[in-house]
Order: sequence, then C-alpha cells, then structure tokens
Amino acid sequence: MQRILVTGGLGAVGRYLVTSLEARGHEVFVVDLQHHGGQNYARCDVGEFRQVERLWTGGGWPGGDTAEPKSFDVVYHLAAEFGRWNGEDYYEQVWRTNAVGTKNILRMQEREGFKAVYFSSSEVYGDFPGVMTEDVMDTIEIKQMNDYAISKWVNEMQVLNSATQFGTESVRVRLFNTYGPGEPYSRYRSVICLFAYRALHDIPFTVHTGHRRTSTYIADCANALAAIADNFKPGEVYNVGGTQYHSIEDVAAIILRELGKEHRADELVTYAEPEVLTTKQKHTDCSKAVRDLGLTSTISLEDGIRETLAWMKSHYNVT
Amino acid sequence: MQRILVTGGLGAVGRYLVTSLEARGHEVFVVDLQHHGGQNYARCDVGEFRQVERLWTGGGWPGGDTAEPKSFDVVYHLAAEFGRWNGEDYYEQVWRTNAVGTKNILRMQEREGFKAVYFSSSEVYGDFPGVMTEDVMDTIEIKQMNDYAISKWVNEMQVLNSATQFGTESVRVRLFNTYGPGEPYSRYRSVICLFAYRALHDIPFTVHTGHRRTSTYIADCANALAAIADNFKPGEVYNVGGTQYHSIEDVAAIILRELGKEHRADELVTYAEPEVLTTKQKHTDCSKAVRDLGLTSTISLEDGIRETLAWMKSHYNVT
Repeated sequence: MQRILVTGGLGAVGRYLVTSLEARGHEVFVVDLQHHGGQNYARCDVGEFRQVERLWTGGGWPGGDTAEPKSFDVVYHLAAEFGRWNGEDYYEQVWRTNAVGTKNILRMQEREGFKAVYFSSSEVYGDFPGVMTEDVMDTIEIKQMNDYAISKWVNEMQVLNSATQFGTESVRVRLFNTYGPGEPYSRYRSVICLFAYRALHDIPFTVHTGHRRTSTYIADCANALAAIADNFKPGEVYNVGGTQYHSIEDVAAIILRELGKEHRADELVTYAEPEVLTTKQKHTDCSKAVRDLGLTSTISLEDGIRETLAWMKSHYNVT
Repeated sequence: MQRILVTGGLGAVGRYLVTSLEARGHEVFVVDLQHHGGQNYARCDVGEFRQVERLWTGGGWPGGDTAEPKSFDVVYHLAAEFGRWNGEDYYEQVWRTNAVGTKNILRMQEREGFKAVYFSSSEVYGDFPGVMTEDVMDTIEIKQMNDYAISKWVNEMQVLNSATQFGTESVRVRLFNTYGPGEPYSRYRSVICLFAYRALHDIPFTVHTGHRRTSTYIADCANALAAIADNFKPGEVYNVGGTQYHSIEDVAAIILRELGKEHRADELVTYAEPEVLTTKQKHTDCSKAVRDLGLTSTISLEDGIRETLAWMKSHYNVT
C-alpha cells in the first residue's frame, strides 16, 4: 500500500486511474481545479505554486490550515490543459498549466523526493510517419505541430533536466487517443467523444479523411497507468495506446451504426481533407507498456463505442 | 523607409537596434515594460494580449485612446525573459512572457500581415558538440537543457507552425553571447557583464572552467539585426555571434588585466568545474549572417571589454 496523489483526479482519465489505484489497495489523494467534498480531496490549480505547496504543508486538505503536513510515495501528475485546438484557442492556459504547473510539481519533487509519473501525449511525435516507438525522439529530430504538442514535449524535457540536475525519479507516459464512458462533451475533446455527442444530438459533423489512429479504452489505459506505482522504473517512458489501428472514418461509421443512423450519414457527416498541422497516422508500439504494465485491450472498438454511447445517452438524458 | 516596431526596445540589445534602424532611415516605434516619455513609445507587457492589440488599435501610444490605429511594416520581437538561471528561478515569467508573449505577437501578425523578426538563442543547440550551423535542428535531435532554452525553441516552433498554417512571413535569429556598454548588472546577465561588475566592485566571483564561447559586441550585433529589415528573407534563420573563440577563463583574465587587478586574481577568482546542464562549447557558424546581413566584427574582445568597463565605471560611478 502506497500513499498516492493524483492531480487532475476528477478528469476523464483521472477518475478511472483513482479507481484502479484503489483497487490495488493504495491510499489515494485527489487534486483538481474545482471544489469537491471528498475526504481525500484538495482543490488546487497546479499553475499556482502556493496552492501546490499547500498539498504538502497540509493547508489544502479538509481541515484547512489545521491539517497535518502530508507526504506521498507517488504523484501522478495528470492535471493539464488538453487538446490541439484547445492549445491554439487557449494558449495562455496551456502554457501556464502545462509548463509552469509541471515545473511547480517538479520543484516539490526536488524538495520532497517522491516518485512521479508525468503525462505526455502522442502529439510529441509530430508528423513522424513510422511506427512510434518511445526512442524516436532520441534519434530523429521532431518538430511538434501545435502549442499543446509543444507544451507536452516541454514537460518531458523539464522532467529529464530535473532528473539530471536533482536526481528526481520519474516515469513519463505518452497517452494515445483514449476514449470511453465519462468524458463529457466539448468541442475540444477526443474525436470519439465529439462524433458520439454530435451524432447522438443530430448535429452535423466533419470527418477529416486520411487520418489513422489507435484508440485506447479508458479502463484499459487506467489499469496500465496504475501498474506504474507497483513496478516503478525511474527514467522509463511508455507509450500507452490501443491495438486496433483504424481510420477516423471507421469511428464515424461505427457510431452511426450503433445509433441506427446509418441512413442519415449523408445529412450528418461531411468528409473533408486532412487538417493542416495534424498527424496523418499514429501507429504506435506499446510493447514496453505491455511488458512492464500489463497493458491489454479488453474490448473491441465497436464494443467500447457502444459503452461510450450508452453512458452518453444516460449522462445527457437522450433516448 | 519602413515603419518598424521593436518590442523590448529599451533592453540591452533593443537600444542599439533602435539606433541602428534609425541610422538606416527607418521610423522606429518602441515598446517595453516600463513607463517612458518617448513620443514613439508605448508601454506593453507582451504577455497580455490586450496590451499587445492596443499597439495596433492605437490605445497604447501617446494620445491614448484618441491615438490613430497604427500599422508596421516590420516587427522586431525582442521582448523576452532572458537567461538560463533566470529561467530556473523565475520560470513563471519565462513561460508567460516568452511562450504566451510570442504567441500574442504571432496572433497579431496573422491578423495584420506584417513581417516579423523573432529572437531565439544559441541555447537552443543544447549541448551539441559540433559547429552550430543553423540546420542542426533539422537533422539532429537536440534536447534543450533548461527552461529558458526550451522556451526559445518553443518560440521557433510557434513561428514555424504559424508560417505553415497562416503564411506569416518571419525570420528567426539565434543570438549568441552578446556584450558591451549599456548592460546593467544583475546576477542573471551575460558572463562578461557579471565578471566586469564583480571585478570592478571587488566582489569575488566563480569561473566555471571548460566552457568555450564567442562573444559578439553589441553594436556589431545590432547592425546585423537592423539589416534584416532591408534584406528580408521569409523563413530564414540566422546565427548572430562573434568570430573570436575564447574560453571563459580568457574573459576573466582580460577583465582583471584591464582593471589592473591581475595581482588580486587569487583573492577575486575561484575556478570551478563546468556547471550541470550548461553547454560546454558554443562554436558557431555565422556565415549566413555575414552573407545576408553584413555581420562583421569591428572590435577585438579586449577592446570591447575595455569599452564595457569604461561604461560600467561611469554608470556605477566607480573610479
């Protein structure tokens, strides 16, 4: 049993990770932006150092300034601004939360000495056309194609430099497209969330052709992430992605079929050219995560989308 | 004659650049953080989009909200947080000013269509051991070694992505160690400024051995930078550095000799190992800047340091 802090623990990935960590017997503490009544919960904007520091001095937790100082064995730093277009439209938040926020956590790690898991993205591979193995960036020059992607590569370098300068022990994870129940819609969310919400609500949507991806079911992703705490290898970096390689057109077709709206495809779906500065294909090699973290795919894309649609119908009260 | 805006125009490089641009007959407008009474001056924190936007809508200039909207042919975006240790100690400012600030200027460029010159640093070459030609980062994977260096590489990618997505026309400049009269002391300034100030004030200082650099005299640097406006090649990137390759020990020795304090070297100078995460040697190839911008070295390191010391004695009233 370890004491584990999860920043961004109320997010789409965070909630599942907390559940997986608790299932493994760990004591889990959660941090996120909003107020929340949980006993092991503290509100914290990771971009504000004072709020980060209070997680250790005790002030942020229930009990406030009378709470005991806390320590954690492992910190999963999931709190981040997410998404390519979000990064272009809200770049102020991206730089503050991702670059300053990660530096704030690193400063605490350098002081407190906990192990940490930092989250990066498949976006750091830029438009690399080959199979994305973790060592690509050790040999091939990659230029990230948007501020969100750049900020995630910044985070990786911040982590590496801290390890060199201060001996901090960290693992980096590059998340590939992850989907599943529990991801509320906004126009900046994952492509499956976007298509599912719009198809469900009869809102026409655009499918950019020529992109290929894997999609990781959120519960599978979270189980692999939770395993890091129990098999912690400092300096390691893992791709965490799915096994089924598919096009974006496939996703749209499955969603329409599952909703029984195939006959309305012409009305609901517009096909367009690939977007500028977007990775054409993301073919990932996750063999390290399979070996060290037991990453596995327990559900097909079709079944995972069905689960996602079921949750979404219930969440948005659409029949 | 072009209308030229210089952000950071009151800084150590900016003041010389403004003088060089005016000598070429351009109409120059200056922006910096502080209040200032100049006719062509506006206060602006480039990290705040509203303040940036007002440079074009007119509100920031003398006359305030009644000032006419302005347009500029060229913008030199010099405003930045500078320095490796500054970036580690004041990373909040580095990310806000450098990453958000540059994005703010790019957003205006995408809207207004001016040409722009963006400033990067030799720090983007990380610890690359060979001769630093501008195309190193197109072929060799470099990891920048501190947040300041990372932020400058972020700026370069932001500029490249904007050119791809919006067709903005920009030139990037990678400044190598620049020195000369007019650089006020702080512990985060250039190595020549640091050593000069401390030797002048009999403050003991540490020389990290094993580092080799070129040093560019500020007036030579500014003349080359000013030439960009008259020979603007969109997409180009220039190293701007000096020709005399020297060790950091050389700099300390010259300063002590010029001050007549050679006999006090043991008391004033401590030699130490190279610092962690610092580039060991910066051997630059500036042939492109020589060819396109007439970069030239008009003064030896010894004479340049003598000029710097003379200014510093006067500025700090030390005889």
